Amino acid sequence: MTVPTSGTRPDDARRHNRTALLRRLHVEGPCTRATLASELGLNRSTIKAVVDGLAEAGVVTEAVPAQRTGAGRPSLLVLPEAQAAVVLAVDIRVDQVAMAMVGIGGQILGRHSWNLHRTTRLPGEVITHIAESAQLLRDELGVREQGVGVSVPGVVRRADGLVHEAPNLGWREVALGSRLGAVLGSPTTVGNDGDLGALAEHVRGAARDANDLLYLSADVGVGGGVIVGGVPLRGSGGYVGEIGHMIVRPGGRACFCGEQGCWETEVGEPALCRALGLPEDTPRGVLVAELRDLEARPGRLDLLSEVGEWLVTGLVTAVNMLAPELVVLGDLFAALPTRLVDRIREELHRRSLVSRAAGRTRIAVSPLGRDGKLVGAAELAFEPVLGAV
Amino acid sequence: MTVPTSGTRPDDARRHNRTALLRRLHVEGPCTRATLASELGLNRSTIKAVVDGLAEAGVVTEAVPAQRTGAGRPSLLVLPEAQAAVVLAVDIRVDQVAMAMVGIGGQILGRHSWNLHRTTRLPGEVITHIAESAQLLRDELGVREQGVGVSVPGVVRRADGLVHEAPNLGWREVALGSRLGAVLGSPTTVGNDGDLGALAEHVRGAARDANDLLYLSADVGVGGGVIVGGVPLRGSGGYVGEIGHMIVRPGGRACFCGEQGCWETEVGEPALCRALGLPEDTPRGVLVAELRDLEARPGRLDLLSEVGEWLVTGLVTAVNMLAPELVVLGDLFAALPTRLVDRIREELHRRSLVSRAAGRTRIAVSPLGRDGKLVGAAELAFEPVLGAV
Repeated sequence: MTVPTSGTRPDDARRHNRTALLRRLHVEGPCTRATLASELGLNRSTIKAVVDGLAEAGVVTEAVPAQRTGAGRPSLLVLPEAQAAVVLAVDIRVDQVAMAMVGIGGQILGRHSWNLHRTTRLPGEVITHIAESAQLLRDELGVREQGVGVSVPGVVRRADGLVHEAPNLGWREVALGSRLGAVLGSPTTVGNDGDLGALAEHVRGAARDANDLLYLSADVGVGGGVIVGGVPLRGSGGYVGEIGHMIVRPGGRACFCGEQGCWETEVGEPALCRALGLPEDTPRGVLVAELRDLEARPGRLDLLSEVGEWLVTGLVTAVNMLAPELVVLGDLFAALPTRLVDRIREELHRRSLVSRAAGRTRIAVSPLGRDGKLVGAAELAFEPVLGAV
Repeated sequence: MTVPTSGTRPDDARRHNRTALLRRLHVEGPCTRATLASELGLNRSTIKAVVDGLAEAGVVTEAVPAQRTGAGRPSLLVLPEAQAAVVLAVDIRVDQVAMAMVGIGGQILGRHSWNLHRTTRLPGEVITHIAESAQLLRDELGVREQGVGVSVPGVVRRADGLVHEAPNLGWREVALGSRLGAVLGSPTTVGNDGDLGALAEHVRGAARDANDLLYLSADVGVGGGVIVGGVPLRGSGGYVGEIGHMIVRPGGRACFCGEQGCWETEVGEPALCRALGLPEDTPRGVLVAELRDLEARPGRLDLLSEVGEWLVTGLVTAVNMLAPELVVLGDLFAALPTRLVDRIREELHRRSLVSRAAGRTRIAVSPLGRDGKLVGAAELAFEPVLGAV
C-alpha cells in the first residue's frame, strides 16, 4: 500500500484549464463562455484568457448562435474547429478493418474500410494496408493526424500496444503498436475492442449519463468493457478483462481460448447463426436481416430462447460481480429483437441479487451501430492529443 | 461524462500532509523523520512541523530505536500512540460476532466475541448485544472509540449502512448503520465483508505489495472483494459486487439468493463439509481439523477434486474479467490443503486466457486467519478518523 502525494504549480493549472475546456467542447459540443465558466467552476476572466488563447491558435472560433433564445444581444458560442486536431481511428475486426480521420468534437472527416479474409488477416498484410489507406485519407482530406488509436479484439498491453493474443484473428504476440507507429509516423495507442466500445458509449453513446457501466458486444467473438466511477476498469499492468471468456456453461462448446462454454461460444455471432438455423459464416447483413425479421414475427422469437438464457446467465454473474447501473448492448447485440431485450431486462432484474438490492440495473441498446469501436479508438487517440493542442 | 476540476489551498495542504504522515505510520509502522520525508516527498522542515504538531497533541512520540544500526547518534523513531485514536471494529458473521477496540497502527487493545444461533441472529438482538459489549470494552480499557466499522455478509448501501439483503443471516432491509450509530453514539460505517477482507489484505495482509487484487473467502457463504489500482472497486451507488453469486454451475444447487449453482453453493462451507462426508452444520473447528488432516494424507485429496474444479472455474471467470495480479484466499479457504492450492494455481494459469497473456496470476493464502474482516472493519473506521486526528 502506498500513500499518494501530489502538487500543483501555476503552469499545471493553466494547462489543466485549457485541456478541461477543450475536452468539454470536444465531448459536449459548442456552448457559451458563461456555460463553460459555470460547468468548469472557473471565473469568467480565466475562461476569457483560455478561449482567447485557443482562438488565436485557431483551435476554436466564436460565432453567433443560429437560433436566438430570448431578447437582448445573443451570447457568442465557442465552437471547436474540427480540423485543428485530427486523429486516425482504426477498428480491426475479424472480418473487416474500418478507419476514419476524426476531428475535435468527434466529427468524422473521412473514412475507409475493407474486408478481411483468412489470407488477408495476417498482421503484416493488415499493417501495410492500414498504412496505405492512411496515406490516401491524408491526401484526400489534406490533413495529418496527431495521433492514432487502434481497436483490436484481443488481449493488449496498453503501454506499448503489444497484442498478446487475439484468438479470433489468429494473432499471437504481435507488436502492433510499435509496428504501426513506425509506418504511420504518429504516436499510436492500441486498445482492446470491448474496452474502447465502453469508452465510446460513455463519451458519445448510450452511457453519457452513467458512471458505472458494463458494455457488452458481439462481433464474431464477445467482448466487453467496464467503466467504474467514470474511469475504465484496468487490471494488472493496465490489462483489461476479457468478459467474453467468462465460463457460463461448463462443459459447453469449445472456445478458441482453450476453455469450454465461454460466454462468446454460447452467445456470439456463430451461436446466433446456429440458433436461427443459418450457417455459422452467414454474412453479417443476412444475419442482421434475419434478426430484424424476428422483430416482426414474435412467434419465431423462441428460436433465440437458449441464446437469451445464456445471455441472462452471464449478465447475472457480471452484474452480481460489478454492480453497474447500466448495461449497454453493442454491435451485433444492438440488432437483437426488442422483445428479447425486454425479456432479458426482466430476467436479469428478477435473478440478480445485486440488481434487486442496488436498484434495477438498466439495459440500453447502443446507438452507435458498427461504429462503436471506431469511435472509441478515436477517443483513445484524442486523450493525449487534447492535452497537447 | 463530466470534466473534473479541483483546487488546493494551503490549509488543505497542511491537513493533507498531516493525514498522509499519520496514515504512513498507521499502515507501515514507526520510522525516522528522514524516511517519512523521502517516502512522502516532503522536505524536512515540513516533516518537522507535522511531527511536532502531532507530538504536541499526544498522537505520536519519538524514541531511540531498540536496535542501533551503524555508528553515530541514532535517528529517533516516530511512533504512533495506539490509544490516541481508537476505533471499534465489528465483524458480524453467520455464526459469530467478533468485536475489537483497535488503536492507531492496528494494535488490538481488547476484544470480545459470541456465537450466533438462529434465535439470537435477529437484527435487534445483535444490535443490543453489540452495544452492551462495546460498553464493556470501553470500561475495561478506559477508552472511547472515535468511529465504528462494521462488516456484514450482505449487500450494503455504503452511504447510510442499510443492509439490503444478507441472505445467510436472513436479514432484509435492516438500517444497521443508523441503528448502531444511534445506540453507540459514534460515527458508524458498514461495509460488505468481502470488500473489507480485501481491504485488510491490502493494508495488513498478503496483498500489501499488490495494487490489483481479488480477495476470495469462504465462511458459510462465499464473498470477495476487488481492489483495482489500489482502490476498492465500487459499482453503482457505491455498492460492491457479490462475487459469491457468480453462476458457476447453471442448474446446480439452489442458493439462498434464488439462483442455482452460485459459486457459494458449490464451494462454500456446506460444500466443503459435503465433500468430506461431514454434516453441513459441522462446527468450524472440526471442519478445519479435517482439512488439515488432508494435508498429511494426500491420498484423500481427491475428496476435494469437485470443489477444486468449481473453485478453478470461478477463478478463470473472475481473472478473465478483472485481470488481477494476485488472488488472496481468505477465511476458511486459507485452511485448504497446500497441495490443492498448488493445483488450483496451475489450473488457473493453464486455463485463463488473461493469466496466460498478462503474466501468471499469483495466488496467496491470507495470513490474517479469521480476523481478516475484523481488521478490514477497523480500517474502514480509521479512514475518516485519521483525517480528523
